[in-house]
Amino acid sequence: MKFNQCVQPQAPENSDNKVWKWHIQDPASQRLTWNKPPKSVLVIKKIQDASLLQPFKELCVFLTEKNMIVYVERKVLADPVIQADESFAAVIQKFCTFREDLNDISNRVDFIICLGGDGTLLYASSLFQKSVPPVMSFHLGSLGFLTPFNFDTYQSQVTQIIEGNAAIILRSRLRVVKESREKNARVDKKGIIMTNGDSEGSRKAMQYQVLNEVVVDRGPFSYLSNVDLFLDGHLITTVQGDGVIVSTPTGSTAYAVAAGASMIHPNVPAIMITPICPHSLSFRPIVVPAGVELKIMLSRDSRNTAWVSFDGRKRQEICHGDNITITTSCFPVPSICFQDPVNDWFESLAQCLHWNVRKKQNYLSSKEDVF
Amino acid sequence: MKFNQCVQPQAPENSDNKVWKWHIQDPASQRLTWNKPPKSVLVIKKIQDASLLQPFKELCVFLTEKNMIVYVERKVLADPVIQADESFAAVIQKFCTFREDLNDISNRVDFIICLGGDGTLLYASSLFQKSVPPVMSFHLGSLGFLTPFNFDTYQSQVTQIIEGNAAIILRSRLRVVKESREKNARVDKKGIIMTNGDSEGSRKAMQYQVLNEVVVDRGPFSYLSNVDLFLDGHLITTVQGDGVIVSTPTGSTAYAVAAGASMIHPNVPAIMITPICPHSLSFRPIVVPAGVELKIMLSRDSRNTAWVSFDGRKRQEICHGDNITITTSCFPVPSICFQDPVNDWFESLAQCLHWNVRKKQNYLSSKEDVF
Amino acid sequence: MKFNQCVQPQAPENSDNKVWKWHIQDPASQRLTWNKPPKSVLVIKKIQDASLLQPFKELCVFLTEKNMIVYVERKVLADPVIQADESFAAVIQKFCTFREDLNDISNRVDFIICLGGDGTLLYASSLFQKSVPPVMSFHLGSLGFLTPFNFDTYQSQVTQIIEGNAAIILRSRLRVVKESREKNARVDKKGIIMTNGDSEGSRKAMQYQVLNEVVVDRGPFSYLSNVDLFLDGHLITTVQGDGVIVSTPTGSTAYAVAAGASMIHPNVPAIMITPICPHSLSFRPIVVPAGVELKIMLSRDSRNTAWVSFDGRKRQEICHGDNITITTSCFPVPSICFQDPVNDWFESLAQCLHWNVRKKQNYLSSKEDVF
Amino acid sequence: MKFNQCVQPQAPENSDNKVWKWHIQDPASQRLTWNKPPKSVLVIKKIQDASLLQPFKELCVFLTEKNMIVYVERKVLADPVIQADESFAAVIQKFCTFREDLNDISNRVDFIICLGGDGTLLYASSLFQKSVPPVMSFHLGSLGFLTPFNFDTYQSQVTQIIEGNAAIILRSRLRVVKESREKNARVDKKGIIMTNGDSEGSRKAMQYQVLNEVVVDRGPFSYLSNVDLFLDGHLITTVQGDGVIVSTPTGSTAYAVAAGASMIHPNVPAIMITPICPHSLSFRPIVVPAGVELKIMLSRDSRNTAWVSFDGRKRQEICHGDNITITTSCFPVPSICFQDPVNDWFESLAQCLHWNVRKKQNYLSSKEDVF
Repeated sequence: MKFNQCVQPQAPENSDNKVWKWHIQDPASQRLTWNKPPKSVLVIKKIQDASLLQPFKELCVFLTEKNMIVYVERKVLADPVIQADESFAAVIQKFCTFREDLNDISNRVDFIICLGGDGTLLYASSLFQKSVPPVMSFHLGSLGFLTPFNFDTYQSQVTQIIEGNAAIILRSRLRVVKESREKNARVDKKGIIMTNGDSEGSRKAMQYQVLNEVVVDRGPFSYLSNVDLFLDGHLITTVQGDGVIVSTPTGSTAYAVAAGASMIHPNVPAIMITPICPHSLSFRPIVVPAGVELKIMLSRDSRNTAWVSFDGRKRQEICHGDNITITTSCFPVPSICFQDPVNDWFESLAQCLHWNVRKKQNYLSSKEDVF
Repeated sequence: MKFNQCVQPQAPENSDNKVWKWHIQDPASQRLTWNKPPKSVLVIKKIQDASLLQPFKELCVFLTEKNMIVYVERKVLADPVIQADESFAAVIQKFCTFREDLNDISNRVDFIICLGGDGTLLYASSLFQKSVPPVMSFHLGSLGFLTPFNFDTYQSQVTQIIEGNAAIILRSRLRVVKESREKNARVDKKGIIMTNGDSEGSRKAMQYQVLNEVVVDRGPFSYLSNVDLFLDGHLITTVQGDGVIVSTPTGSTAYAVAAGASMIHPNVPAIMITPICPHSLSFRPIVVPAGVELKIMLSRDSRNTAWVSFDGRKRQEICHGDNITITTSCFPVPSICFQDPVNDWFESLAQCLHWNVRKKQNYLSSKEDVF
Repeated sequence: MKFNQCVQPQAPENSDNKVWKWHIQDPASQRLTWNKPPKSVLVIKKIQDASLLQPFKELCVFLTEKNMIVYVERKVLADPVIQADESFAAVIQKFCTFREDLNDISNRVDFIICLGGDGTLLYASSLFQKSVPPVMSFHLGSLGFLTPFNFDTYQSQVTQIIEGNAAIILRSRLRVVKESREKNARVDKKGIIMTNGDSEGSRKAMQYQVLNEVVVDRGPFSYLSNVDLFLDGHLITTVQGDGVIVSTPTGSTAYAVAAGASMIHPNVPAIMITPICPHSLSFRPIVVPAGVELKIMLSRDSRNTAWVSFDGRKRQEICHGDNITITTSCFPVPSICFQDPVNDWFESLAQCLHWNVRKKQNYLSSKEDVF
Repeated sequence: MKFNQCVQPQAPENSDNKVWKWHIQDPASQRLTWNKPPKSVLVIKKIQDASLLQPFKELCVFLTEKNMIVYVERKVLADPVIQADESFAAVIQKFCTFREDLNDISNRVDFIICLGGDGTLLYASSLFQKSVPPVMSFHLGSLGFLTPFNFDTYQSQVTQIIEGNAAIILRSRLRVVKESREKNARVDKKGIIMTNGDSEGSRKAMQYQVLNEVVVDRGPFSYLSNVDLFLDGHLITTVQGDGVIVSTPTGSTAYAVAAGASMIHPNVPAIMITPICPHSLSFRPIVVPAGVELKIMLSRDSRNTAWVSFDGRKRQEICHGDNITITTSCFPVPSICFQDPVNDWFESLAQCLHWNVRKKQNYLSSKEDVF
């Protein structure tokens, strides 16, 4: 499998100073190809949603009949309604079960099927901190940005995926590292962090892979601490407002669009930075190349702390001296398309965001001059 | 010279279905390297601007003393003030002159120096429909997005470029083809175009390379004709409003930003589509991958025509049956950086657009609760 | 008839310095009351629209049967289809006809009925440069901001109006005076206007009553001249961009909303100033009190001219020395409501602008954390 | 004292159906006039700000020398630095002191002087739940929207106020009532509230006067409960997003402007409704007349609660069955102008929000065509 999705400047064709040219590829050309037939599938189902039970059972029976090895999370099977269903017991016995916190299944699964809304794919993404198998996502109600498949025709759709006949889009993720200072560091009156020289080793770092966005906001406070934003080591701006969103192109149509961002197709290799209710009228969102490193820290003179969350989860405080480092992850989410990356995206824009839905004007508009 | 600026998905490392990984490069790593020492330089000066005469003369004398072959447009030298300057006559004699409309100098120039505002670089770009030599742009007044160099220290700056010591940014351009129907086509009452089957060959096509944007707008009319927008052959939306801007990332900080677009760093391989005063509240700007093909046409039921311009020039009417096809050009503009692509851009955002310039709040803000 | 629509600060209740209080009235309480039964009605129909002919004839027959004196524009009756309709000839004979440019009917009409889109009411407004009779507007296709009545039930609706049973909204208009310098004034090289002291009397002034907006824009030029904006004699800002819109609250949902303005209920006594694609990121629209005087002029250093239009009509050039003076008109348009000013407006926001139409999220949103 | 600030439709001048006219007054004409010379002044100082001590003491000495009765909050004098200043002790002895929670001084104070930022005036406003004396606000650092006076020339400025020589602006406030259901009400599975018929009397109502805004937001949750918004009893929309801001015109330049609102001059009698990061692209802010009643409640199907705050203070939870009722208060804040309502506001827009601050373009812009 090889993907070349973006503009690649080429070496000049001859040795003098003159020739500059680019080679540009079509983003719609990416396709799923199996090196060997897929044998195992992880089925992810939102828990505590009764309406998903029947589709889930149908799908599992179908996959079992196809001789696929089906992986299911233990907590999904713990549902009393599933436990009580005697006819389903025989199917369950064939499942491989695992627990999110105990078992690493990243090398055992050939592809993933998600049942639920966009949040289900975000959850699936969080299970794989490194390489992610291709994901097929079904919506059961209305179309989502991350859930292009309608469950009504799941049998033929799943069969086509198993046969390797599908377009794919690599959705970039962000690798986020939150590094916290050790407990005994102190901030003096001028906001300078006092550490013991030998205590650096006690810093704690946590890593997250996010598919939509990292959000730094004011949490339960009435106003945000000033937050400094660095790009490749340079302070580029200070955020004063309700917060800041660092998102993937996939995430540009989630929280970022609500905060005023333009919408970016997931094939664009970029990172979006969007302020939330900024105090400055001129703080427009910006889009930077995928290859940069961003860092977020509390400003030295901030009196409050801030809060960070990762795809809306793992919400936690940021204290003085903590820093959040963000780069494009080496491990994107290969998301199986219903049609192709272009048509799926515009369909979602129309269905989910009513993008440019207008009333056709029957009579003369106010700007017309026909009298 | 080799540039690898963007995210490149790599082939999986082994033969099973599991491993997906990306290789991501730093956009700031691009540098100008001469394969052989540069010998010729094109100096572009805005005409009819008296304040540029002295810097222009100084620069030309300096380049001549450096034994560079200096190319200058004939119309620049036609300025009576230059003609009357006897001390400059000796320098002029060493110039190579050319006329925009007559002479192709694209293979004779090693690099370009621009004196003037951002429009000077747009003009320079328009002179090179294919490969463009590296461009060094000076602002004489205040910093511009396309004119990072201050003229005060031009001698050391130019010397460094000649010695090959500079960062460079490849600014993508759009290749725009305007294809017009032949004169004898007619539009009937229902807006259907009537052509003779054998007249296809008489269509006329014009090609432009734009660095900022293609604009389709209502021209002198009070309202815009409906305009259809196609992406890779699919109708993605119809524009109703004052017009639509298709811009490069470089152009995102020009007209597009005035129309509400987010700002895109020039290293992101993308095309931006921004409506101008759209009738629909939900018509947010979008960013699509550099590799797509866009097409713009009047909608069949439009009663008026529309107008198109290219980097603000060559303004002309679009009639029923005409179409505008836009792709990322294979010929970017290699623009020499003052510092590097990242710092230059953020400096321009601050200086030209006052991006996120805020008043520091001295006392308690309205959201604080310290009483 | 008496209308008290807005907040009125009251005189303090006693003679010391302490008591401040406001009296606030409900905007929904305004109602149409006839001092004597209405006898004459002006019917306005968009010309050159075949679909309106049948409704127009039905309505006229109905009004004649109600013994109303029906006024119709001569050009409406000039339509060959109407001329050819022999059964309608008897009805026509009872009409009072007039010509827009020749006859002043402002004191002869008790109320107006409009058939067509929003533009029909704009046209009706332009016929009355002083006091305007109450207007009832029918949409034939889809609901418009200015056309709340559906034609299907016109008989009962019109009967109710004649009986004086209706809510009304007074839509403020702007009084716009365009004053042009005499022909022999000259602008010298520095943009200073040279006039002969005794030539002031030769200035020409035109007056317009606008219901939606005055627009100053770049016309056929690629960019706008700088335009200065004065409020009560003070220069408040200079517009650099595609233009500026000065609108009534009624006009806030027309061109202004496309240019990014907030939407203002027509009962708010205010004037809205909205830039069109401004060069400055911080040029947010503003809302000023109805009682101010605005003035627009070309900036002294502008090299180009600008263009002005009034409710999308009477487009004309603004030259150096011309000025546009704008105040709230003393003559609002009394617009008859379908329900009341509040419900009609929110119904229009939903139908015409799809205001806050959302997709109900069936499954977990991206920000939820239920796994 | 009499204020007539807004557009007032007048009764028609004669008895037939024809004449409609408006009387419009200039907002800049409001002036402060004392019915009898002012004798008492309340000085409000932000506590815990050492930089304010010296100005505070100077001002108090000056006022005492002018024979004014000076009111000061007890907690201001509790500051150890003030206590330790022996030279100030004699001045303090002449003060009237009071405690916010214990003493009602609303009828004892002729005018108020604030020292601090905009928050100081918000705090002053909160002390007066009914009529508010005129307020003079000093900024000690940079200009604020609510603090127009510079302290440097305080002596002449205060003297002029005492002599009754000043323009004034009546800043409207919102009267907000939060009504909570009694503790033993229960919400059943379908979100329906179960109450005992006889328990209505146990509902608890709190009232607030806000000068800037009421904010309903998601508080510490990752996403907002759906919130229903009613106007004059009709459900006008449901908010899905981070929250909603209901603000006065004064508040339009505070949190609302950060959330994307247009800016409204404080003389416009209106209420602004601004969504915070709405999920819908078409949820533009709206401006409604001052005379309406708004109500905010959790939607029946909301799973979470929401939070409300009043001018950034008194943050508290909103539960199912609670409702927030908002009307324009009868008690505005009479705010003393530095120049007049118009000039002060535009000066604040420029200084605080950098409204339409642009870089003057020296050379040709990108849209120019002079080559």
